[in-house]
Amino acid sequence: MSNMAAPDAAAPAAEIAATAHVHDLEPAMAATLTPIRAILAAVDAYDGERVRVGGWVRTGRVQCGGTVAFLAVNDGSCHATLQLVVDAAQVAQPPLARLAATGTSVLVSGVLRIPTKRSKERIELGVDAVLHAGLVDDAAAYPLPKSRLRLDYLRDFLHLRPRTETIAAVARMRSQLTFATHSFFQENGFLCVHTPIVTTNDCEGAGEMFQVTTLFSQAQKADKEVLKLKLSEISRNNDDDDGSVCFDNDFFRRQAFLTVSGQLHAEPYACALSRVYTFGPTFRAENSHTSRHLAEFWMVEPEMAFANLQDIMNYAESYVKHLCQWLLTHCLEDMKFMVETHDKTAIQRLERVSTTPFERISYTQAIEMLVESEGNKKFQTKVEWGIDLASEHERYLTEVIFEKPVIVYNYPTGIKAFYMRLNDDQKTVAAMDVLVPKVGELIGGSQREERLDILKQRILDAGLQLESYEFYLDLRRYGTVEHSGFGLGFERMLLFATGLENIRDVIPFPRCPGKADL
Amino acid sequence: MSNMAAPDAAAPAAEIAATAHVHDLEPAMAATLTPIRAILAAVDAYDGERVRVGGWVRTGRVQCGGTVAFLAVNDGSCHATLQLVVDAAQVAQPPLARLAATGTSVLVSGVLRIPTKRSKERIELGVDAVLHAGLVDDAAAYPLPKSRLRLDYLRDFLHLRPRTETIAAVARMRSQLTFATHSFFQENGFLCVHTPIVTTNDCEGAGEMFQVTTLFSQAQKADKEVLKLKLSEISRNNDDDDGSVCFDNDFFRRQAFLTVSGQLHAEPYACALSRVYTFGPTFRAENSHTSRHLAEFWMVEPEMAFANLQDIMNYAESYVKHLCQWLLTHCLEDMKFMVETHDKTAIQRLERVSTTPFERISYTQAIEMLVESEGNKKFQTKVEWGIDLASEHERYLTEVIFEKPVIVYNYPTGIKAFYMRLNDDQKTVAAMDVLVPKVGELIGGSQREERLDILKQRILDAGLQLESYEFYLDLRRYGTVEHSGFGLGFERMLLFATGLENIRDVIPFPRCPGKADL
Repeated sequence: MSNMAAPDAAAPAAEIAATAHVHDLEPAMAATLTPIRAILAAVDAYDGERVRVGGWVRTGRVQCGGTVAFLAVNDGSCHATLQLVVDAAQVAQPPLARLAATGTSVLVSGVLRIPTKRSKERIELGVDAVLHAGLVDDAAAYPLPKSRLRLDYLRDFLHLRPRTETIAAVARMRSQLTFATHSFFQENGFLCVHTPIVTTNDCEGAGEMFQVTTLFSQAQKADKEVLKLKLSEISRNNDDDDGSVCFDNDFFRRQAFLTVSGQLHAEPYACALSRVYTFGPTFRAENSHTSRHLAEFWMVEPEMAFANLQDIMNYAESYVKHLCQWLLTHCLEDMKFMVETHDKTAIQRLERVSTTPFERISYTQAIEMLVESEGNKKFQTKVEWGIDLASEHERYLTEVIFEKPVIVYNYPTGIKAFYMRLNDDQKTVAAMDVLVPKVGELIGGSQREERLDILKQRILDAGLQLESYEFYLDLRRYGTVEHSGFGLGFERMLLFATGLENIRDVIPFPRCPGKADL
Repeated sequence: MSNMAAPDAAAPAAEIAATAHVHDLEPAMAATLTPIRAILAAVDAYDGERVRVGGWVRTGRVQCGGTVAFLAVNDGSCHATLQLVVDAAQVAQPPLARLAATGTSVLVSGVLRIPTKRSKERIELGVDAVLHAGLVDDAAAYPLPKSRLRLDYLRDFLHLRPRTETIAAVARMRSQLTFATHSFFQENGFLCVHTPIVTTNDCEGAGEMFQVTTLFSQAQKADKEVLKLKLSEISRNNDDDDGSVCFDNDFFRRQAFLTVSGQLHAEPYACALSRVYTFGPTFRAENSHTSRHLAEFWMVEPEMAFANLQDIMNYAESYVKHLCQWLLTHCLEDMKFMVETHDKTAIQRLERVSTTPFERISYTQAIEMLVESEGNKKFQTKVEWGIDLASEHERYLTEVIFEKPVIVYNYPTGIKAFYMRLNDDQKTVAAMDVLVPKVGELIGGSQREERLDILKQRILDAGLQLESYEFYLDLRRYGTVEHSGFGLGFERMLLFATGLENIRDVIPFPRCPGKADL
């Protein structure tokens, strides 16, 4: 499917310039290290080789009357550890017990050897020099002892948790899914567009937004009475007590917000360059304390001109399959760890999704099927035409009825956004959602309304101001085309892939109500 | 250097799933189109082929007594246009004059042919059906007539300017540089880490930050007196009039800001997984109205454990060379356009930088050279040891003295951030800047202070609170390692590559003081 080679730490990396080494600086060290991934990928080739390795001790033990330390060291290049054998008789080093403490960093040189006797190690490093050891100052205080730790406990140590097996595996998978995303869209002729984070419009015409301001710091600097701004009294200024706040003095001279979606900014680029995608952070100031919501999360949003609903259903399906296949190819070791520790079906799910055609049914068909199922299954929300499908309905469709991904299309106009194209039946819009087992909705998309008059009416019907959408209407006034796009919630994809339950574990620094640590 | 194939619209793209076409929807259209780039890349192969093409009319003319229209159509897949020939006698279509208006969108089918007579076209499309035409409602009102438009004029039409040759070329180059960045770091074993946008710490301990809040919207909802918050009086609450604002009711229950750099969040990942990089938006609320400053801009920030200053000098040089080479390989047509219209030396500059070893000199040497030069060159800021190099000094070093990129290292402690590693001379830190012709500083980086006691002292010396940096100190308490990183200003790289003068033209939606359009 792809002619792009995998990023592979075991493969020869790009040549790093070292044409002009500076002799009054320490010589470069990074290039002298061998990644553990490279060693484990070719143990026979490395047997007998002298290497330098750097990493952190995951577990260590001291044996043979305190004279030999066995350190399981990880450097992040892969899930597995390399066993380092440090013999106190041969190597000057810190006390072995300290070296063996979980969390210690080591940079060592030695010779690799394949153990001859009964050993679970495929290869180990006989250390003959400890070049650096970063000790754990106070082992009792180190928050990550070698026992297995709960994920919710780790959320209080966002700066240390990437040293754990689970969070490290998530980091590698997240990185691979990032690159797989760029590869997929670049290969298919899409341009990556960096849509803005700070925006003065609101994609949905709804949804809670964060405001971006410098008024507080201005006020703090300017001391008390400079700004004519009283939040508690909410006066425009001294003359005009109409209840609104005045933002003339704010950085952007008006209210500005964090984006909730790149779509409205991607459309102008699609309506000029045909195929674009965004991949960036988006924000919702919703007071949701669930395991499925974040205030800051990443979205992938392709947008295509000369494309209709069926086109984006095809691209959405291909993209999801591409991601699943990529993980199976590039992250199988991490996936196996997830299967062992978190979700037995994680690999099976990826395999199934990457090879099975997605079911495609209309919203109306979906409602009929769910109504029929109500004999067997009691839903919390009663099923009837017109409702927004709840997670329980979505998961029942994909997990029970079809046992595979399902694309539901043509949703009722009343539950969807103004920009979705009105179908000829006047009751539905050309929207589609991709539902997958485990997480329900993974992707939402639509054909966009390209007809000027209908779009205007839909904006007004939604209670929005035409003035705010003049730029958007211009795209329909001047050379309008059928165009369509979708959005994939990147953390949802990670929940789907890893099998983890809490979205706060699949993003490095989760932001939630009352929580923005570090 | 790379075993990764280029994204290439002319190459067979990933197979798009179409296993389950839905028959109550319009058939897919996107897959039936041929990108203009593909046609122009293989004109002989396409001669005589029937294709569908969609795009926008850049220029059109009607000839032969009003019976034939020649349309130069662009679809964004490449810089060049394809000539469409529409014969009124053969094709039912809107009036030719309307079809030929700049900005009209067309979706046509026809047969490609290589013109036999004197024609500047290498291939043209004889249209036999106009499947769609999106007219320009009012040609006189369309803000982008076919005359060449000034870039500052276009900044008032951010939603339409990607239809212009220059902004379209920038968009393609920006997309290619994005993918080149991911390719480089993935190939070299770096993990992409999504560091947070909303943060409660401040990387630099200085710099103007934007605050993120929901207090205004809460106040607007709650009506007047609910929040005990008076900005103009700046009271903590009714009981404690100490001049500070109370943020207990804000979304994050404290002050939160937009990040100024991903570094402090990348370090914990590097100190666990060895090699990581971030690529995301960063923010400065500086009241700068220059052609070089944005309030929102993108940064690429790799961070490596077991790496010193010389290592990151090597990686920085390799990365910049990789970007230059990538553009020459994948964007040569756009680069040629830039040379013709904006900067004669743009290609030459990329070629030179991609092949020439960067000069490496210490700050002290740089100062000596600049002092020597003061006979020939009058600088606005007097050169003496201890000053922060100004843009005029940086550009003189790279453009006049060396005529190639220069890496300056070991800067005075007093002008650099607290986290940079103190050198043994106690006067300088292990920092480095990469200076390039045209823009001056392109990259700034440093080895990070990994020694706990020295780092603590440096934080205190900078007037910062240790409490805010406990997470950062933990990285030094538990398994500390030498580590280093740098940041590349992505828009600076685009200025360097395109030769454009104003940073607002190399980002899709520029944000500046008083400006956050759309």
